[in-house]
Amino acid sequence: MSSNQLTLKGFRDFFPEDMAIRREVERRLVTVFKKYGFSELTTPALERAEVLLGKYGPEAEKLMYLFTDHGDRKVGLKYDLTVPLARAVASNPDITLPFKRYQIQPVWRAENTQKGRYREFYQCDFDIIGSSSPMSDAEILAVISDSLTVLEFMSFTIKVNSRTVLFSVMESASIDKSAWLSTIQSIDKLDKKSEDEVKQELSEKGLSGDQISTLFNELKNAQPDAYLAETLSYAKKFGAVNIVFDPTISRGLDYYTGPIFETVVSEPKIGSLTGGGRYDNLLKTIGGPDLPAVGSTIGMERIIDVITELGLWKEKIQPGADVLVTLFNEELSEESVRVATILRKNNINTELWSERNVKLDKQLKYADKKAIPFVVIIGPEEMENNNVVLKNLSDQTQQKVSVEELASFLKNK
Amino acid sequence: MSSNQLTLKGFRDFFPEDMAIRREVERRLVTVFKKYGFSELTTPALERAEVLLGKYGPEAEKLMYLFTDHGDRKVGLKYDLTVPLARAVASNPDITLPFKRYQIQPVWRAENTQKGRYREFYQCDFDIIGSSSPMSDAEILAVISDSLTVLEFMSFTIKVNSRTVLFSVMESASIDKSAWLSTIQSIDKLDKKSEDEVKQELSEKGLSGDQISTLFNELKNAQPDAYLAETLSYAKKFGAVNIVFDPTISRGLDYYTGPIFETVVSEPKIGSLTGGGRYDNLLKTIGGPDLPAVGSTIGMERIIDVITELGLWKEKIQPGADVLVTLFNEELSEESVRVATILRKNNINTELWSERNVKLDKQLKYADKKAIPFVVIIGPEEMENNNVVLKNLSDQTQQKVSVEELASFLKNK
Repeated sequence: MSSNQLTLKGFRDFFPEDMAIRREVERRLVTVFKKYGFSELTTPALERAEVLLGKYGPEAEKLMYLFTDHGDRKVGLKYDLTVPLARAVASNPDITLPFKRYQIQPVWRAENTQKGRYREFYQCDFDIIGSSSPMSDAEILAVISDSLTVLEFMSFTIKVNSRTVLFSVMESASIDKSAWLSTIQSIDKLDKKSEDEVKQELSEKGLSGDQISTLFNELKNAQPDAYLAETLSYAKKFGAVNIVFDPTISRGLDYYTGPIFETVVSEPKIGSLTGGGRYDNLLKTIGGPDLPAVGSTIGMERIIDVITELGLWKEKIQPGADVLVTLFNEELSEESVRVATILRKNNINTELWSERNVKLDKQLKYADKKAIPFVVIIGPEEMENNNVVLKNLSDQTQQKVSVEELASFLKNK
Repeated sequence: MSSNQLTLKGFRDFFPEDMAIRREVERRLVTVFKKYGFSELTTPALERAEVLLGKYGPEAEKLMYLFTDHGDRKVGLKYDLTVPLARAVASNPDITLPFKRYQIQPVWRAENTQKGRYREFYQCDFDIIGSSSPMSDAEILAVISDSLTVLEFMSFTIKVNSRTVLFSVMESASIDKSAWLSTIQSIDKLDKKSEDEVKQELSEKGLSGDQISTLFNELKNAQPDAYLAETLSYAKKFGAVNIVFDPTISRGLDYYTGPIFETVVSEPKIGSLTGGGRYDNLLKTIGGPDLPAVGSTIGMERIIDVITELGLWKEKIQPGADVLVTLFNEELSEESVRVATILRKNNINTELWSERNVKLDKQLKYADKKAIPFVVIIGPEEMENNNVVLKNLSDQTQQKVSVEELASFLKNK
């Protein structure tokens, strides 16, 4: 078996250069979540199959990793973070409400793999359980706005709508209730299709010309309902930016009960980065308690892909140590150990070359490959004079620095 | 199904109060790993069954979660972090060596559950792949020493031994090679059994009185071999503390090829907290490349249990926000939003009460339950005077603070 086949298709190892970016994305997001009073929940990889089944529809169930465990229980790897959240809240009836949790964990889906689609991938959700106030909806919007800002996505737009708005548009256009969902699904395509194409589609679905023209007229004149207006007003006070009311977005209408949120990023062109809204019935439906809820997901994997591929962040994310202390020869190894230990005691992340009889050149190449920005060289002369040669690998300059000053010198870099 | 039965036995949700401690343990350990130039590897939950099988022995295989996936592949949840490391290195032949990685991830074992033993639990490993220098063994010892120090375990002892030492003791006592492993297993019990009990056991195993007395004499006079002596000398220079040579420890002798490390903590009485050593053949044996390796595991779950149960850390680990901004009544909600937003802009983790018509008393109880240390109250009078009542929940004192000074006031607390 070749080395590539050793790893399961659709599954990935994250090596240090990947993990550095993943952890930095996570760190920035968690800073925002915490600032708004969210705290962390972690749930198991495995759930009872009956907890997972019947919650997502038959198409999703085909993609679930289900099996029978040693105790003859039907179990499955979790498919998303929402059902486990409902199960966790249901398992802990004494939980303090409102429960504001964030959760960043892998989920598993036996998808056909393709670029950007994996069988194990990380989701990032944040939700407020047990609050029916528009201030909570507004906080979710503020977290979305702050998150994309700290991730340095500057040209984002948070589109908001509400189930109520869409339903009242349907009513005004005298569309039969049985056709609402199908009509809304066509309208939702207005970001990808032209108005004429969508009109054609609706006509094919059986809507009359009058209905279609009233529908588009109503959409153009639609205004946020009272609850959404209050949400938007609070969101603005929280400092959320780039929010626009868009009566054409409808994501997961069978699922959301009030406001709906979706974020698109125009530059780089990567489409939707967040999705969420208020879902006051969902927890009960999927076996949890009857509690109002509002939240959003952030497309972690897409964000990481974009940052990696486009090198989006100006600040370089360093996967390895700050400095490599080289080993000139075996006789000088104790001096290298001494210098490395001084640096470490000063909280400088220090790698020490430990293999003996390796040419300095190879050690420098190692530092370069691992993107370690500084290299310390201690030869016999440096040891004699209690100093080191400090080499800056980015600009290839070097200078002598005394051992005493080395730590503070590196800290200032 | 009752709420407790919803969660699989042996699997745990980690709620914010758990996660706060888990993340703090992780943060402290990662700080040490990075200081020594280790960087992070993450591997998938699932591996091919053939990667997992035949590496741990039949007893372990009975505990593996194995199943057949949608592509009819035999797969399994990972059982530890060592085999996935070997697989990851084998899958990436171009990896830069030495590879110094740490990894903190869950593993799965269908164990009989009992106190402190779970079916999903986190392991924490750090290893240096591709170095055969005693400086690397010494760095592992230094990381163990620094880790237990930052975790505030003060009365730890790092016991070290070497396969070479044990083998030379066996030879001096003229013990037949076929009896070495069994003899060593008896000697390893000297931390739990008396010398007489172990001698009795060895006699029952067929050793002569002469052999037994020579054996114990040799153990008492044993000295580190040259490689271990060099390791210990470097470890001391790295600043590692509480290291003792103990020729009776032998953990996993079939696995280790050189130095062996084990840490015991006497206060609190929790036994062994780390285990590791040099394992130059293991990676090849388990399907990886032929590379020397040295490393250790740290018993994360045991550490977390002890910190949680004994309240080991003096510094309180705060699971939630720094401050709760209460909601006096609906008319004053915008003022509460304004103050919360000012605090958040100053990077103070702020929870804002959002449910309307809830008595202040209930809001204060909520802050208390969530261990939020400060509460901000803004009534009509405070709004008028552009100040707030700041209540310290730990000492039940309160005082008026102007809105402008509130953030810096809280930062100094």
